[in-house]
Amino acid sequence: MHTTTIHVRWGELDPYNHVNHAVYSSYLEHARVAALEYADRGLDTLSDAGLQIVVVRSDVRFRAPATAGDELTITTKVAEVRGASMVWEQHIHRGDEAIVSAEITAAVLTGGRPSRIPDDLKAVLTVLG
Amino acid sequence: MHTTTIHVRWGELDPYNHVNHAVYSSYLEHARVAALEYADRGLDTLSDAGLQIVVVRSDVRFRAPATAGDELTITTKVAEVRGASMVWEQHIHRGDEAIVSAEITAAVLTGGRPSRIPDDLKAVLTVLG
Amino acid sequence: MHTTTIHVRWGELDPYNHVNHAVYSSYLEHARVAALEYADRGLDTLSDAGLQIVVVRSDVRFRAPATAGDELTITTKVAEVRGASMVWEQHIHRGDEAIVSAEITAAVLTGGRPSRIPDDLKAVLTVLG
Amino acid sequence: MHTTTIHVRWGELDPYNHVNHAVYSSYLEHARVAALEYADRGLDTLSDAGLQIVVVRSDVRFRAPATAGDELTITTKVAEVRGASMVWEQHIHRGDEAIVSAEITAAVLTGGRPSRIPDDLKAVLTVLG
Repeated sequence: MHTTTIHVRWGELDPYNHVNHAVYSSYLEHARVAALEYADRGLDTLSDAGLQIVVVRSDVRFRAPATAGDELTITTKVAEVRGASMVWEQHIHRGDEAIVSAEITAAVLTGGRPSRIPDDLKAVLTVLG
Repeated sequence: MHTTTIHVRWGELDPYNHVNHAVYSSYLEHARVAALEYADRGLDTLSDAGLQIVVVRSDVRFRAPATAGDELTITTKVAEVRGASMVWEQHIHRGDEAIVSAEITAAVLTGGRPSRIPDDLKAVLTVLG
Repeated sequence: MHTTTIHVRWGELDPYNHVNHAVYSSYLEHARVAALEYADRGLDTLSDAGLQIVVVRSDVRFRAPATAGDELTITTKVAEVRGASMVWEQHIHRGDEAIVSAEITAAVLTGGRPSRIPDDLKAVLTVLG
Repeated sequence: MHTTTIHVRWGELDPYNHVNHAVYSSYLEHARVAALEYADRGLDTLSDAGLQIVVVRSDVRFRAPATAGDELTITTKVAEVRGASMVWEQHIHRGDEAIVSAEITAAVLTGGRPSRIPDDLKAVLTVLG
């Protein structure tokens, strides 16, 4: 499991004075990329090896609103590694309070086409479990 | 059912040269708001009446990538109206090709608290079905 | 001169209920790219030829706020073509009302390095004047 | 002078694999808001007092590109306080390398209309010089 911190920016709020729900998808992506970088498999490194990781399904539950100045903690883990895809489980908290929970399914592409996950990437993803 | 058109902007692409997946949530929100405006229930009008519509769950499937210059069509309908929430069903196409499908659950707040959907709003949402 | 239309999205508003000032830079970029595409020199086409156009200075004046549902017109022209850079002049209006004026200076890169503007691109930019 | 740190997010990159130029306006806004919060004059606090700070001119120079994983430092100071507006001077660095410089002019609104800057806000802005 990997943990990242996000500082909410005022410009990410909408007229309800809360973080716009679409912004959380960016926060979650940032946290997944940070987890991969932590494991030395940043998206740049993967791209150099001809690999892309693309989201195929995003299931997000919004539990409480966040607002300007909030410091949010995102926990990220790989819940499942399949042959050609993986499922990420992520939670955003403000202190003890649950803000967002998400299950993100992503596929691996090689040369732009769906492909089996190479063994060394599979090993890294398993460590992030 | 309501239909909206979106022109992809170059700045919405990520290094994969495709629309970043988080951007689709903004497209989908734009289409729901346009549907409400079409029914004379824009978010401003609702706010003036003390009502807010907030997303509580977003389940999105990404089927094919879109890129710069694409013109996308979004169809939006209210699939279900419950006591205090509603389920939107949305599809994004480029011509005949399916790009994104989504099921968005939203709750109604009155004075910032979950509340039953007022009858006249319920009638409008039913018309958008 | 080239003209583009933008429909403001609700999620682009900030807590002041106006389009966040940073969003206009995205609108303006979209309009410049649309002008280049109109002249058959979309950024993809240029990239294929090893060329990139990068903003080196952005001077933007915000004259009046725009809000949700507004339809904005952006006029875009190339005010000056220099050896290795160009100056774009852009105006955003809502009907007759001036919303934003901008002067954007962009440089041309070949293989990631500043370079003279190739003659055929120079001819195209001159036509957009 | 106030200093803030920003971690670039992958989704903020464009197809050139660099932070899209429009994103820097969001970074700069975030840094100005953080400076105001540091001085106990966050935008929420100001809004409660009927005051808004709105950008009227943004003059930004882009000196070098930033990319994913970069940690950027933003220095923010109030260079000039006028009767009804102020000029912010901001610099973004990656280590010693200059990435962006900006001069942002902002006006104060009271009840949505341009107004003189109240004395206590003027004192705070002077401290941020």
